[in-house]
Amino acid sequence: MSTVTYSVKGMSCGHCVNATTDEVAKVAGVSNVAVDLEAKTVTVTGEPVDDAAVRAAIDEAGYAVVG
Amino acid sequence: MSTVTYSVKGMSCGHCVNATTDEVAKVAGVSNVAVDLEAKTVTVTGEPVDDAAVRAAIDEAGYAVVG
Repeated sequence: MSTVTYSVKGMSCGHCVNATTDEVAKVAGVSNVAVDLEAKTVTVTGEPVDDAAVRAAIDEAGYAVVG
Repeated sequence: MSTVTYSVKGMSCGHCVNATTDEVAKVAGVSNVAVDLEAKTVTVTGEPVDDAAVRAAIDEAGYAVVG
């Protein structure tokens, strides 16, 4: 099990949290998604955390991973 | 036909625009809803614009009318 935290631009409200959580939760292997709106982070736990798939899911939700 | 513009707090993104538009559009008599995210306004056109019902719909969407 591993946990990766992404910095994500553009999330501003609870709807954004839901959109991001929903998309990332669909990624194979992901068991938990935690969005921190203040810190603008998305913390993903999974076995494994498929980095490329998580980034694609965040993009799909309409946001941009920083770095 | 009349048009009323409300100042609304808390809308921050396109999801907020959709949530507000959807709720206000359901109000009887309303024919158009225009949300300006920059100006934080919701402009409602209807015959009539039922003020109390529009305010209730904005509240239902999760936002607060100012004034």
